[in-house]
Amino acid sequence: MGIDIGGTNVKFAWIDSRGRMIHKATMRTQAEAGPEDAFGRIAKTVRRVMGKDAPAGVGIGCAGLIDREERRLVVSPNLPAWSGARIGRISERALGVYTILENDANAAAYGEFSVGAGRGAKTFVVVTLGTGVGGSIIHEGTIFRGARNYAGEIGHVTINERGPLCKCGNRGCLEAYLGADALVKVAKHRVKSTRSVLGRLAAEHGSLTPRLIGQAARRGDRIARSVLEDAADHLGTALANVVNLINPDRIAIAGGVAPAIGLVLPRVRAVVVERAFTKSALCAKIERGRLGSGAAALGAAWIARQGAVSPRRGRRSD
Amino acid sequence: MGIDIGGTNVKFAWIDSRGRMIHKATMRTQAEAGPEDAFGRIAKTVRRVMGKDAPAGVGIGCAGLIDREERRLVVSPNLPAWSGARIGRISERALGVYTILENDANAAAYGEFSVGAGRGAKTFVVVTLGTGVGGSIIHEGTIFRGARNYAGEIGHVTINERGPLCKCGNRGCLEAYLGADALVKVAKHRVKSTRSVLGRLAAEHGSLTPRLIGQAARRGDRIARSVLEDAADHLGTALANVVNLINPDRIAIAGGVAPAIGLVLPRVRAVVVERAFTKSALCAKIERGRLGSGAAALGAAWIARQGAVSPRRGRRSD
Repeated sequence: MGIDIGGTNVKFAWIDSRGRMIHKATMRTQAEAGPEDAFGRIAKTVRRVMGKDAPAGVGIGCAGLIDREERRLVVSPNLPAWSGARIGRISERALGVYTILENDANAAAYGEFSVGAGRGAKTFVVVTLGTGVGGSIIHEGTIFRGARNYAGEIGHVTINERGPLCKCGNRGCLEAYLGADALVKVAKHRVKSTRSVLGRLAAEHGSLTPRLIGQAARRGDRIARSVLEDAADHLGTALANVVNLINPDRIAIAGGVAPAIGLVLPRVRAVVVERAFTKSALCAKIERGRLGSGAAALGAAWIARQGAVSPRRGRRSD
Repeated sequence: MGIDIGGTNVKFAWIDSRGRMIHKATMRTQAEAGPEDAFGRIAKTVRRVMGKDAPAGVGIGCAGLIDREERRLVVSPNLPAWSGARIGRISERALGVYTILENDANAAAYGEFSVGAGRGAKTFVVVTLGTGVGGSIIHEGTIFRGARNYAGEIGHVTINERGPLCKCGNRGCLEAYLGADALVKVAKHRVKSTRSVLGRLAAEHGSLTPRLIGQAARRGDRIARSVLEDAADHLGTALANVVNLINPDRIAIAGGVAPAIGLVLPRVRAVVVERAFTKSALCAKIERGRLGSGAAALGAAWIARQGAVSPRRGRRSD
């Protein structure tokens, strides 16, 4: 069983011993009430679905910085009331089963690797485009963590050392160009009137979002298209860095902004071929993630399954 | 036994079963005569040193693109007459011992990892500063190769998407700022007269080199210092990318230009802390390589030793 805990919703995924999805569910996080409260309600949901059966193992994907050894959420911008909580232990007490705690980006990547866009890849990279830009690397079936589990921060690869300031304090990070706020800011700057499709959508909705930019681009709006084309150039540059450094054979673009960026994916691919070493670039297949917003819950279930099959591995801190 | 084959010299390193260096040697490559000729002379050198004893295993580090499975040098700018040669097989015939073929940057990194600056590191990155800028990643004792053995090209990480053109065809690569030619070009541009130490050295030697820039900086020359400080900023940006993506606990700066860059290493470290995530940056110890120009031969010997201890591993293509 896998659980994806976000700031707004908790998502559940049940898989069978062969990894096939057998059930899913969603509930409100009500994060401000704290983790003990949430796990009380999580336990109820699990009982409602499973009856008296206990899950064979539980994996949790959680937004924020994770201490895997202590199975603790060190800090999370989306779950401030949960900071410092030993989620692994709380879950175990509520559900009666050993629980593996993982970062949500890693969980989503593991989901895509197990049953989505990363199936069969040797070196798989996921870029998650949302409010922030995240990432994860899976090499030979194992999440690549580096020395202390901080690897994979693709959103904070500098593509222009004199570029715009990023929330992380650095200049010219990919996220400073491709985070949802940055995209919307560029679009607002270019929309001068309501004569364009994008201008009309902005007026109708009171503001702009990456989804509306994608909608306008799909309807042929030139401004929206130009915003996404510039985004493709930046993303292509960052992915060329990833390609030259890590040499992946598969890259998946996931997250809420992925549908909009999907419209300019051929351009992203062209920039990677133009910038990275040809042999390396041609080896890296770039496509959309396939699991949508359910990737992290499903991936967490797969991580639990992996842990159940070889418990040492699942419990190791590296 | 390890052999490092470069465009000018062939270097040898003999180690005992515990990995201690017991002997080293050097001979001219005379690359234009081709690999068969060179291995004739290599065999003579080996016989002169070892008498009738055969080495327990041979590792070769070779500049250029390597097909490890076929143990072939696919292409090499410094050994044009060797392109396509099955070095592994040629060496075996000449020396009578199974030979592992490896890229020279990987061999040097493995040397630093085994007995130099990377000892005990979990995720170790080497940046080689020379005519070109190369690199290698060693994670948990194994060279990280990515999907097709092209990983580790740190010299071709873009740090400015609109930066100067690089030899690889991309814009704003680290190498376009920190390759020996690029450094010399910047220095020449800034040296307006022979009144500065650097200007005097340039006039004396007829031209400039990174070594002379380092010499002048050591004597307090402000122009040389400014060239190296700018280089430190660019290198720091590229290493911040490596830190955020790979989370190494050790980074070594090696190669012929490393002594000059060593003068501004505190600045490189400061830029990494400023740009990368703090936790990740503080985890990455950045220092000079310790083995100098003998790293690749020694590393190749260690790779051979590793192959002899667990031959499957040494012979595997991944």
